[in-house]
Amino acid sequence: MAHIQLNNDLPGIRGLMAFSPKTAEPLNALAETLLRNDDNTLSRGERELIGTYVSYLNDCFFCQNVHGAMAGHYLTCDIAQIDSIKHDFKSAELSGKMKALLSIAGSVQKGGKHVTQSQIEEARKNSATDKEIHDTVLIAAAFCMFNRYVDGLGTSAPTDRQFYINRAPQRALEGYQSSVYH
Amino acid sequence: MAHIQLNNDLPGIRGLMAFSPKTAEPLNALAETLLRNDDNTLSRGERELIGTYVSYLNDCFFCQNVHGAMAGHYLTCDIAQIDSIKHDFKSAELSGKMKALLSIAGSVQKGGKHVTQSQIEEARKNSATDKEIHDTVLIAAAFCMFNRYVDGLGTSAPTDRQFYINRAPQRALEGYQSSVYH
Repeated sequence: MAHIQLNNDLPGIRGLMAFSPKTAEPLNALAETLLRNDDNTLSRGERELIGTYVSYLNDCFFCQNVHGAMAGHYLTCDIAQIDSIKHDFKSAELSGKMKALLSIAGSVQKGGKHVTQSQIEEARKNSATDKEIHDTVLIAAAFCMFNRYVDGLGTSAPTDRQFYINRAPQRALEGYQSSVYH
Repeated sequence: MAHIQLNNDLPGIRGLMAFSPKTAEPLNALAETLLRNDDNTLSRGERELIGTYVSYLNDCFFCQNVHGAMAGHYLTCDIAQIDSIKHDFKSAELSGKMKALLSIAGSVQKGGKHVTQSQIEEARKNSATDKEIHDTVLIAAAFCMFNRYVDGLGTSAPTDRQFYINRAPQRALEGYQSSVYH
């Protein structure tokens, strides 16, 4: 049970967003812009993967499953493959650029000052643009917020991981700005 | 110098927002709603204090000075008093409710799961409402994002703390949604 009376039984951040629609609006707009905007050389799947990895590092069950399922949907891989990336992205079949960006995201999760010049150079060496580095840092930072919001208020989440996989195609279609209402 | 080429010399988050206006919009809308919306029983000064404290814990010089100056402006106290609250809020002249909420904010800074049932009970015992607890957690979570965004991209910030104090009255007047352009 959540730390506060939500007056709804929606899981994770959705219950919080229904409780507080005024703050839900900019939060959903941020997720929409960061994760779905098409004016981006990182694919939707790559951006969802960054959010999934940070949510995993923050041990947020709801977010790592919602966004892990989204990443799996876009990248057409199954949950076992997503899990293996979360646990050891360096050994995964990912581009050098994605590995460099996930390394930066992992540092952001610890704290902004953990990002080093050599991580930035490694990303550049792998052809990451300034916008890609910017978006990686902001996605990682945003998930440090979303994860804390979800767990800091003690929300509940379905434990069956298939629940998140089943919902991903519809969410991919509808985007995040409608997520309060579903 | 920032980790990426910002093509402007604005300090802290303002340089990032000018670099990326599409993400600036929801970020500013979030700050505006959380910190300035008048439909709130926590005063603007109290909300700025929560953001300041979390920014201090995250060691983000820019954010703790911007928002420390805002808190000082609203609460009509000087920077030495704000500093002493940051360093030891339990000994400060604050209401029991604010102390309970700052304690929750401090736990959110570590990670959402650090918030305990007894912290929530302590807040309630001091008359905190569900909305106040909700807003405290989300403000703390949001500053964990803002701080990581600012420091994760290695932005620069004026070292003279008077700079932030001088700007606070104007920012209080204009709000956050105009902050990209000033």
